[in-house]
Amino acid sequence: MQKLTSDAIEQHLTELSDWSLTGGRLQRTIGFDNFKAAMVFVNQVATLAERRKHHPDIMIRHSKVTLTLTTHDAPGGGGVTEIDIEFAREADDLLTVKAGR
Amino acid sequence: MQKLTSDAIEQHLTELSDWSLTGGRLQRTIGFDNFKAAMVFVNQVATLAERRKHHPDIMIRHSKVTLTLTTHDAPGGGGVTEIDIEFAREADDLLTVKAGR
Repeated sequence: MQKLTSDAIEQHLTELSDWSLTGGRLQRTIGFDNFKAAMVFVNQVATLAERRKHHPDIMIRHSKVTLTLTTHDAPGGGGVTEIDIEFAREADDLLTVKAGR
Repeated sequence: MQKLTSDAIEQHLTELSDWSLTGGRLQRTIGFDNFKAAMVFVNQVATLAERRKHHPDIMIRHSKVTLTLTTHDAPGGGGVTEIDIEFAREADDLLTVKAGR
C-alpha cells in the first residue's frame, strides 16, 4: 500500500474534517460523556482494528479518546495510506451511531 | 489525599519495580502477545478504574499498553498519592493472573 502525498491527504481531510495530520499521522480526539462511554467506543474501535488487521494507537484520557493512524509497513518508512483513510471513515461511522461529540 | 514526597515515591518503587516516575507521574508499559490480549487487560484496568473512581491514562500501541497514574485533584496541583500507589499494585495483580510480560 503506497504512502499518500501531502496533497492527497489534504484532499481527504476536507471530507474527514475532524481529523488532522499530526507528525505525519492522522489524528482525531473525541470527547464522550464519561469514561464508560469512552471505553465502549474504544472496544468498537478494537473490533474494527482486528477486522481490518490495522491497529491505530489509542489513547484514553478519562472521557477523551485519541486515535492516531499510520501504516508502519508502507514503502519508504511508513506514512498515511488509503488503509488509514478508510479506517478513519469507519471510526467516524461508529460515532454517528454512538453519542460522540 | 496528600501528594507523596519524592522519597516516599522512591520507597514504593522498590516494591513496584516495573513502574517508574516519569514527569511526576507513575508509569508502566506492559507488552502482551497480541492486540487482543492487550485489550483484555485494558478492559480489566477499566473495570478497576470505575470501581476505584480513579482513571489512569491508558495508551494502547498494538500489543503494548502504557498506564500513567497521577491524582489530578491532590492539593498543590496534582501529583502521585497513595491512591496511585494502590492502583499500581492492583494493576500489577491483574497481570499475575493474565499473561503479561
